[in-house]
Amino acid sequence: MSDHSFSAVSNVQALKWSDRGLDVLDQRLLPGELVYQTFDTAAGVAEAIASMRVRGAPAIGIAAAYGVVLGARGCFARDPSGWKRAIEDDIRRLAESRPTAVNLFWALDRMREAIAGIEGDPVPPLLAVARKIHEDDFAANLAMGELGADILGGCKGVLTHCNTGALATGGYGTALGVIRSAWRRGTLERVYATETRPWSQGARLTVWELNEDRIPATLLADSAAAWLMKSGAVPWVVVGADRIAANGDVANKIGTYSLAVLARHHGVKLMVAAPTSTVDWATATGRDIVVEERDPRELLHPALLGSDSVIGAWNPVFDVTPAELIDVIVTEAGTVANPSPDAMAALRGKPR
Amino acid sequence: MSDHSFSAVSNVQALKWSDRGLDVLDQRLLPGELVYQTFDTAAGVAEAIASMRVRGAPAIGIAAAYGVVLGARGCFARDPSGWKRAIEDDIRRLAESRPTAVNLFWALDRMREAIAGIEGDPVPPLLAVARKIHEDDFAANLAMGELGADILGGCKGVLTHCNTGALATGGYGTALGVIRSAWRRGTLERVYATETRPWSQGARLTVWELNEDRIPATLLADSAAAWLMKSGAVPWVVVGADRIAANGDVANKIGTYSLAVLARHHGVKLMVAAPTSTVDWATATGRDIVVEERDPRELLHPALLGSDSVIGAWNPVFDVTPAELIDVIVTEAGTVANPSPDAMAALRGKPR
Repeated sequence: MSDHSFSAVSNVQALKWSDRGLDVLDQRLLPGELVYQTFDTAAGVAEAIASMRVRGAPAIGIAAAYGVVLGARGCFARDPSGWKRAIEDDIRRLAESRPTAVNLFWALDRMREAIAGIEGDPVPPLLAVARKIHEDDFAANLAMGELGADILGGCKGVLTHCNTGALATGGYGTALGVIRSAWRRGTLERVYATETRPWSQGARLTVWELNEDRIPATLLADSAAAWLMKSGAVPWVVVGADRIAANGDVANKIGTYSLAVLARHHGVKLMVAAPTSTVDWATATGRDIVVEERDPRELLHPALLGSDSVIGAWNPVFDVTPAELIDVIVTEAGTVANPSPDAMAALRGKPR
Repeated sequence: MSDHSFSAVSNVQALKWSDRGLDVLDQRLLPGELVYQTFDTAAGVAEAIASMRVRGAPAIGIAAAYGVVLGARGCFARDPSGWKRAIEDDIRRLAESRPTAVNLFWALDRMREAIAGIEGDPVPPLLAVARKIHEDDFAANLAMGELGADILGGCKGVLTHCNTGALATGGYGTALGVIRSAWRRGTLERVYATETRPWSQGARLTVWELNEDRIPATLLADSAAAWLMKSGAVPWVVVGADRIAANGDVANKIGTYSLAVLARHHGVKLMVAAPTSTVDWATATGRDIVVEERDPRELLHPALLGSDSVIGAWNPVFDVTPAELIDVIVTEAGTVANPSPDAMAALRGKPR
């Protein structure tokens, strides 16, 4: 698939490949500045991931795959016979860039498998695998988008949380892909986006991305979501997932669980959109998912950080929404209504 | 009551009177800078209110009362026989400083009544009335604090929202007054405070105020409150009120309704602490309360404000929590469990 295909469905691209290397949109600067930076080494791509220029689990996996291509190009040029040994350093560096993103390890494994069978110049075959990873993610997003839009039906307003769009994926989005598809059908009229404190992915990324694609959106404080639901403006909440347990419990950005409880109270439905690669079959339930906590300094003013301060901060990155609060999980391989261990298991055999 | 009495229960004072005038703590600069500015005219105090140096309905009313004293001092010095006519301009200016704060008009009415009966130098009698307003608010806070702490019993952790403390009142707090009283009894171990977007009164004011008084507190993102409740750390949510309808419905800072729904889901109890002056007997239910919406620019990045932007923001300042989600309303005149029109009416006749 060409870059042209990606741009046909969104004006936003987090990653662009060219002969010079990988162009990475610096998401730390959005929405104030739109800056792409070209990385032409694996170490550079690893740094782009570690520094959060690129974020979102699928996008991280894709960037790492292109990073391996760049690493192979350098290693092969320096040592055509010993490049396969040399590139292991690059792969290790990429793997260490964000230690918790499952998609990262999955993409690196696929690149390593490809490396094993290569003879001669590794760049064309490895680039083909990286492009395939990118295109497959994009295709999965499109498939999810259509399945999700079918379920939304004539729904005119949805609420979403965090950023799950073209910026976070191969170019369309998971939850935001469903929203894009519903918008393209002409049924959805307005997207409501939470700020998503403390990183403000909603305020910085989601509404910027929607503006780029001319999809009308309304930003609100996280704490205003309940009042919005009471107004009747949003029959559906649509979110992504960072990890889905085998029973359908969903770990996602902090605040998702809050929205799930509030949605149930107001008769609002909750859709989780994520590729099957997000399902962790080895994790039986959400209780087994350890929730990462980040630095309290993301919340606390410097004036409260003194050694004599009695003030701390609690900064969990994710929360876990129990399956019973989820109306439907949408994947590229099919949908699971009222998720349960049995209903989830039906997904497992399906080809992506 | 002397300033010494106020400081005996809190190190934090939003307002201090001296012969020079009214010292106002500039709350816009907290927690980075602790700056008092002295205002010696009514116009200056009106500007301090309008510019949000002082905020919180009770504190605004008290500041305005002192503002009238300063106005009378100036008018009487310039024209000992015609000062009562001249001071009307000052009162009007103070009344226009924040058009929605009920306490402001109540305080100005009391000052105007006092003016009518004065002969000779107005400063001593008007200062006595202003001090009385200040001391009465402080005494009401202390009374509420004790009543609320009785109800909290042995509760070790509470969650609060916005800032309802010494900064917002005559010097102790409504919800934060209950929390102070419970802390002084040695039962409460930790306060959890929401950031309270978009103005961040929790992150900027509440945790600063608690640190000044050495009360251990943990700050969290608004969207993390549900996950905190699920952990069992907070058996009670304690909040203030901006307006209470005759049936016990409560208008308060946006996010309060969200906390109320989440609390009920988790078996967490909700206490509203507010003086009887906050009850609006003329408003039958919360449905009759019009919720103010503020400027979308408080939420939107400047990059999204262009004339071609399809992005807006919804920025309600308050929401309304129905009485059935409130476990108890605590006032200085008594408490109302499971508020209803009849239960509320019992408060009406009680002297403050």
